[in-house]
Amino acid sequence: MAGIERIGVSLEKELLGAFDKLIAEKGYQSRSEAIRDLIRQQLNDNRLTNDKAEAVAAVVLVYDHHATAIMERLTELQHSHVLKTISSLHVHLDHHDCLEVIVLRGKVGEINKMGEKLISIKGVKLGRVNLLANEGL
Amino acid sequence: MAGIERIGVSLEKELLGAFDKLIAEKGYQSRSEAIRDLIRQQLNDNRLTNDKAEAVAAVVLVYDHHATAIMERLTELQHSHVLKTISSLHVHLDHHDCLEVIVLRGKVGEINKMGEKLISIKGVKLGRVNLLANEGL
Amino acid sequence: MAGIERIGVSLEKELLGAFDKLIAEKGYQSRSEAIRDLIRQQLNDNRLTNDKAEAVAAVVLVYDHHATAIMERLTELQHSHVLKTISSLHVHLDHHDCLEVIVLRGKVGEINKMGEKLISIKGVKLGRVNLLANEGL
Amino acid sequence: MAGIERIGVSLEKELLGAFDKLIAEKGYQSRSEAIRDLIRQQLNDNRLTNDKAEAVAAVVLVYDHHATAIMERLTELQHSHVLKTISSLHVHLDHHDCLEVIVLRGKVGEINKMGEKLISIKGVKLGRVNLLANEGL
Repeated sequence: MAGIERIGVSLEKELLGAFDKLIAEKGYQSRSEAIRDLIRQQLNDNRLTNDKAEAVAAVVLVYDHHATAIMERLTELQHSHVLKTISSLHVHLDHHDCLEVIVLRGKVGEINKMGEKLISIKGVKLGRVNLLANEGL
Repeated sequence: MAGIERIGVSLEKELLGAFDKLIAEKGYQSRSEAIRDLIRQQLNDNRLTNDKAEAVAAVVLVYDHHATAIMERLTELQHSHVLKTISSLHVHLDHHDCLEVIVLRGKVGEINKMGEKLISIKGVKLGRVNLLANEGL
Repeated sequence: MAGIERIGVSLEKELLGAFDKLIAEKGYQSRSEAIRDLIRQQLNDNRLTNDKAEAVAAVVLVYDHHATAIMERLTELQHSHVLKTISSLHVHLDHHDCLEVIVLRGKVGEINKMGEKLISIKGVKLGRVNLLANEGL
Repeated sequence: MAGIERIGVSLEKELLGAFDKLIAEKGYQSRSEAIRDLIRQQLNDNRLTNDKAEAVAAVVLVYDHHATAIMERLTELQHSHVLKTISSLHVHLDHHDCLEVIVLRGKVGEINKMGEKLISIKGVKLGRVNLLANEGL
C-alpha cells in the first residue's frame, strides 16, 4: 500500500464547524477519514463517466420468480464473454418476488448496457446498477 | 396477484415515436411493460422519501479487509433489533479489498442512518445504500 | 405540432391504484399527462448521456461577489464560440452572496466541461448544471 | 466573514495523486479550494434533506406557451405567502417552448411540494427544482 502524506487545508472557521458537526453525526472518527471519503467518492464518480473504464458492479434486481425469461437471461449473462460474473446472491422476498444481487467486472459501458437489458425483461420489477470504480479506490 | 386493467393513454405522435425507439434499444418487448416500469420506479422513489416506510435494502460496501473495526460493526448489524439482515454476500476483489452486499429489511430512516454509520468506518472505501420499496412493487 | 395518438396500456389493478393516488397528490389532471411526463423525462435523461447531443442548459451558481475571477470568467463565457449564452439572471442573496442563472445552448459535452470550469473557480460556493434536451421534448 | 483555519489531512500518496490530477483537469487553483467545495456540497446535500430548513431554489421549467394554465399558476405562485419569489427569467426557446427560471426562498418541504405542482401542470414538458441551502454556505 502507498505511503501516507499529510497536506494542509485552509478553510473558513464556520465551514469547519459545520463540517465537524456533520461528520460527528455520521460517526466519523477523524476529519482525515471524512475528507478521504469525499475525495474517493469524487474520483469514483469521475471514473464512472468513462465508458471504457474497468469497473466492478453490483446489479440489484427484484423480479417475479414466475417470470421464466429472466432466469434464462441471467444464465446467459453468466456465460457472457464481455462481462465476468464474480458471484451472486439470491433472496426470496415473499411469495412472488425474488431479489438477486450479481457482482461482476467489466467496462462501464458494457455494464450499463447489460443493466438496461436486464431491467427491460418482463417480470423484472426494479433494477439498479451500482458501479464501483475498479482501480485506485 | 391483482387482475389486469387496460387504460388508454393519448400522446403526441412524435413523443410516441421517440419512446418506441428508446424502448426497442433497451430491449423491451412491449410498451405496456416499459410504462409499467416507469410507473413502478416513480412509486418506488416516492415511497422511499418517507422515513417511516418499510423497505428492503441492498447495502454495497467496498472495504480494506485489514480494517478490523468494519468486521465488528458488520457483526453488530446482524444482531440489530431495528433492522433485520436477510442475507449477505462477500467477495474478495483483490489483495486488499472486499466487497460486501448486505440485504436487509427495515424502515427507510433506520436503513439510511445505518448506511451512513457503515460508510464512515475507517477502512470502508465506498458504500451505497440501494433502497427498494417493500410493498406494492 | 404532431397529431395525437392513443395507445392502450395494460397493468395490474394494484399498480394502477397506487399510481392514481400518487398523481392525484402531485396535482395531475389526467393519467395521460402523468405518463407523458414520465416518458419525456426518460427520453430527456437518455439524450443527455450523449456528449454530442444539442441541449439547453440552465447553469445555477452561488458565489461570493467579492471574488473578481468569477466575473471575468463569466464574461469570457458570454463570448465563447462553442456555447451560446441566451440569457442570464443575477440575484443578490445577501451581503456576500450572489446567485447567477445562465441559460445557454450547446453540446452536452461542452456544457458539462464549462460547468466544471465555473464550479472550480475560487469564490464559487455552489454550482449546478441543469441539462435539458433540445429536440423533440 | 469568519477567520481562516488550517487543518492537516493525512491520506495515501496514491489517492492524493489521483485527486491532484482530477482537480487540475477541473481547473482548480488549489487543493484547499477543491476540498472546501466537497465539504460545502456535502453540507448542502445534508441540509436539504430537512423539510423545515430554509433554502433558496432555482426552479427551471420548459413549457408550451400555448398552455394557459401554467401562466395562471405561475402568477399564483408569485403571490404565495409560503414561498417568496425573488426574481424570474423568461426565455423563448422556439416557436412552441418557453423556459422559465424562478428564484425563490422558503422551506425545503414547501419548495418541493410547489415544484411537484408546477411540473404536473398540462403543458409543462420538463421541470427541475435546484435546491441550494440558505445558511452557512
